[in-house]
Amino acid sequence: MSRRDLFARHLGIELLELRAGYSRAALTIAPFMLNGLGLPHGAVIFALADFAFATACNSHGRVAVALSMDIHYLSSPKVAASLVAEAVEVRRGQRTGLYRIFVTQDGATPIAELHGMAYFKDASFLEGDDEFHDTE
Amino acid sequence: MSRRDLFARHLGIELLELRAGYSRAALTIAPFMLNGLGLPHGAVIFALADFAFATACNSHGRVAVALSMDIHYLSSPKVAASLVAEAVEVRRGQRTGLYRIFVTQDGATPIAELHGMAYFKDASFLEGDDEFHDTE
Amino acid sequence: MSRRDLFARHLGIELLELRAGYSRAALTIAPFMLNGLGLPHGAVIFALADFAFATACNSHGRVAVALSMDIHYLSSPKVAASLVAEAVEVRRGQRTGLYRIFVTQDGATPIAELHGMAYFKDASFLEGDDEFHDTE
Amino acid sequence: MSRRDLFARHLGIELLELRAGYSRAALTIAPFMLNGLGLPHGAVIFALADFAFATACNSHGRVAVALSMDIHYLSSPKVAASLVAEAVEVRRGQRTGLYRIFVTQDGATPIAELHGMAYFKDASFLEGDDEFHDTE
Repeated sequence: MSRRDLFARHLGIELLELRAGYSRAALTIAPFMLNGLGLPHGAVIFALADFAFATACNSHGRVAVALSMDIHYLSSPKVAASLVAEAVEVRRGQRTGLYRIFVTQDGATPIAELHGMAYFKDASFLEGDDEFHDTE
Repeated sequence: MSRRDLFARHLGIELLELRAGYSRAALTIAPFMLNGLGLPHGAVIFALADFAFATACNSHGRVAVALSMDIHYLSSPKVAASLVAEAVEVRRGQRTGLYRIFVTQDGATPIAELHGMAYFKDASFLEGDDEFHDTE
Repeated sequence: MSRRDLFARHLGIELLELRAGYSRAALTIAPFMLNGLGLPHGAVIFALADFAFATACNSHGRVAVALSMDIHYLSSPKVAASLVAEAVEVRRGQRTGLYRIFVTQDGATPIAELHGMAYFKDASFLEGDDEFHDTE
Repeated sequence: MSRRDLFARHLGIELLELRAGYSRAALTIAPFMLNGLGLPHGAVIFALADFAFATACNSHGRVAVALSMDIHYLSSPKVAASLVAEAVEVRRGQRTGLYRIFVTQDGATPIAELHGMAYFKDASFLEGDDEFHDTE
């Protein structure tokens, strides 16, 4: 699924590590990823965190979709920064799961901190073309 | 500022309306904006909402940056959908402001609902190249 | 269920209106509900909003529990203020629902704005003593 | 300030540890703290977390007020449970600060996980009766 994520590929997001309930991904800020103040765009930071979240919550073989996410910005990355997002499963129920995601720069400086809530569908990845709106 | 937002321009986001404390923006889902399930990417929906939020909170002539955002997904847009995000100022203090953002498809179907918290810096737009990390 | 809510009763919360997907409730700030700054306590404002949310999401006859809530404080109520919380259903799926809650003072001044996410269990209210931890 | 928090005292919340940017507090669920399903009330769990947050963000000697909080419920505590909330400072700027709060039962079982955003006022605690609405 992560390979078919066209937007993540477009941004150059790279999956570094993936196991059940855990994911780590990286992105390097490109010139087109700046905002109106000339800084790395908040929506790009979000996109990286979202990718780590999506791969972590889909890591159990069952299709998961996002219900909600919240992002708290801690500091602005440098232009051309290398960012890493790490998603950890906090709780997994039959139908919903909570994930904590941290984004850092250069493996240390905190950039953003998020929570993501996932909904687990009945479909597995083999069943194919599931759609979000008939999720539930 | 909105014109200098390179990432928003890259996504083809268009500013439809802007006045003090209010903004409305549009985006059409392109093929590279799909996720691993073949649906419009949550991070693209977020990016559109973020642009409406950023332009609304910067509409008073004072530089504003995002402190936090939360997004609640309501339904998945169609592939190639035309999305509109509308940001409304809920409260503006001396230093922080709260904004409510709604994303809809075809001017009707609810897609997502967000809150964004902005921080107002001392800088105005004429003063030039402000940076987020010395915001406060 | 709202009548059996001992904590809401303890705070003197009153249900003003209840229909499918909608609830409105009121509370008057008592002297013991102040915080360390001598102002109405944020947790009391939350408790009122939570009651409106809980009654709204349980209004369909199926047991619902809260997955998450976010609260944005807009202004501080007066000491001894009369507060009203109104909860509206934004989206209801098979398993989860999103609610928007507004708290106002004297029917006008905005005090707080929240979102609440509910999880709908298989149990109906006739089945009795359900427990949250085996929800899913 | 924590001693003057009448609502926290009413609930029997106890401050266990307090240092700059950190706080830990405890509460035992009393019979009046149950919800309509007979379980410990979400608003009581929130109140405990809120107290840890408030004491942590006010620990630097400058008056702080809450801008927003989000709570994610992980499991339901037992009736009569002993709960502990721990608040940690994630980031502190000149005007705003972010805190992470964890609530556990019996020192282990995760009950809830929150973020709180604080606003730091110009007032120190010696200046007396500050009010939230002229915060900014």
